[in-house]
Amino acid sequence: MLIVADNLQITNPAIAQAVETMDPEPVRDLVSRCAAAGAGAVDINTGPLARDAESRMTFLVETVESVTDLPLLLDTVNPAALRAGLDAAKNRVIINGFSLEPKKLEQILPLAVEYDVDIIGYLLYPDSQVPSGEAGRMQVAVELFTAFSAAGGDPARLIIDPVIAPVMWQNGTAQDTGVLSVIRGIGELLGTQVRTIAGISNLTTGPGPMDRKRLLERVYLSMLAAAGLDMALMNVFHRESVAVVHACNALLSDRIFTWEWREETRIAGP
Amino acid sequence: MLIVADNLQITNPAIAQAVETMDPEPVRDLVSRCAAAGAGAVDINTGPLARDAESRMTFLVETVESVTDLPLLLDTVNPAALRAGLDAAKNRVIINGFSLEPKKLEQILPLAVEYDVDIIGYLLYPDSQVPSGEAGRMQVAVELFTAFSAAGGDPARLIIDPVIAPVMWQNGTAQDTGVLSVIRGIGELLGTQVRTIAGISNLTTGPGPMDRKRLLERVYLSMLAAAGLDMALMNVFHRESVAVVHACNALLSDRIFTWEWREETRIAGP
Repeated sequence: MLIVADNLQITNPAIAQAVETMDPEPVRDLVSRCAAAGAGAVDINTGPLARDAESRMTFLVETVESVTDLPLLLDTVNPAALRAGLDAAKNRVIINGFSLEPKKLEQILPLAVEYDVDIIGYLLYPDSQVPSGEAGRMQVAVELFTAFSAAGGDPARLIIDPVIAPVMWQNGTAQDTGVLSVIRGIGELLGTQVRTIAGISNLTTGPGPMDRKRLLERVYLSMLAAAGLDMALMNVFHRESVAVVHACNALLSDRIFTWEWREETRIAGP
Repeated sequence: MLIVADNLQITNPAIAQAVETMDPEPVRDLVSRCAAAGAGAVDINTGPLARDAESRMTFLVETVESVTDLPLLLDTVNPAALRAGLDAAKNRVIINGFSLEPKKLEQILPLAVEYDVDIIGYLLYPDSQVPSGEAGRMQVAVELFTAFSAAGGDPARLIIDPVIAPVMWQNGTAQDTGVLSVIRGIGELLGTQVRTIAGISNLTTGPGPMDRKRLLERVYLSMLAAAGLDMALMNVFHRESVAVVHACNALLSDRIFTWEWREETRIAGP
């Protein structure tokens, strides 16, 4: 299971300020620390980028690439910003992402085919609602895969995000047990092996004691790893969670076990 | 997932001494601390009990019951000691356990039927060797279930132990991934729901750094819980591992989620 850092977010005031003033230092510093902490890829979460979308995305991509050659996830709903990022990027790129939402099928998905890059597909209804159970997610997965294939996508380029539900939702924990089943069963369902990713921070969204949130995150990371999750989008500064991912990888690896396990930073796929 | 304390062992010199001199205090102290630490049942591991087997088992059962009403696992290969324990016990009892080993099929298994109590069946070959993979464990499970049924056992009384392999074994981690599949699939395989138990300390047997052993234990406990393991036989003084079990139970429970989760101390079955 590869760790994708979710730390580079425009909602972080220091990053917002750096983007506003085109100051590369705060971004470089953050990304360097993410790489040192065990990130195998970096999500560049720019939000919708209402102003100067293209120059800002280009600035971010170039700044991140000035300190790392890790793969980049371009995390925006803005197709113009996305195209600018795809044009600017020299590192491997993953588009994050599309769903059955018509605007995304029309404007985001085609970019993955055009640029022949990986893309994340979210198991959400066309109105962006989260399916309430395993069956709903499975049905959406089939529709998403059909739409992806119809657009000319190569299944080896598709990464499914089953969408972790906050445990505080009324049926959140039942949904999250279903998410494990979806990850285990999606290859068989679609008749082809697709990779999977999940945004871990969703699990503990909302109020709650920090120590128990972190504990639940570690526990669920282990369960996701055993289910076969390929990438965990997470806060790479959660040091104990990172240690859990490395332990999971040592336990689930095909290699001879050693207590001197190393972190995994490969990314599977074409 | 219920925690079964593996702490009461004759190999503990203080316990060996207490049994030798029939001094109840060290046993009472240990068991009280196990219950306080979160044990939902207590394994009484007497070993083969070469001398005074019956009086020693009786002493242990009565001493443990003097401080707790938790279920007891009678963990011995000595049928006479086992019968003495079954006669002495007032708490709920689980026999730990039998396997395809002829002596155990002949001398241990019938006691479960005679006393109508739960019994643990180990997925081991008749010569007590550990099957080297998932297929081997599944085949043994079928044979064990057949032998159990032929002896008049009620499936609701059977608790399967798939036998965790030490990660340091040549194919240990692959076996332990297989153990997760066995736990997930055994109900379907046998055509009836049976409960499962696993001895967690096996995982990290052998040399290795303590902090990574404990981390691996916590990670694998989470995976076992997600696979549906009913009981974890473990050191209940591993405080962080106990916290992981409680977090797993909160996450996998059918009840409304709350951050103020409580420990589970129920034991399923008839």
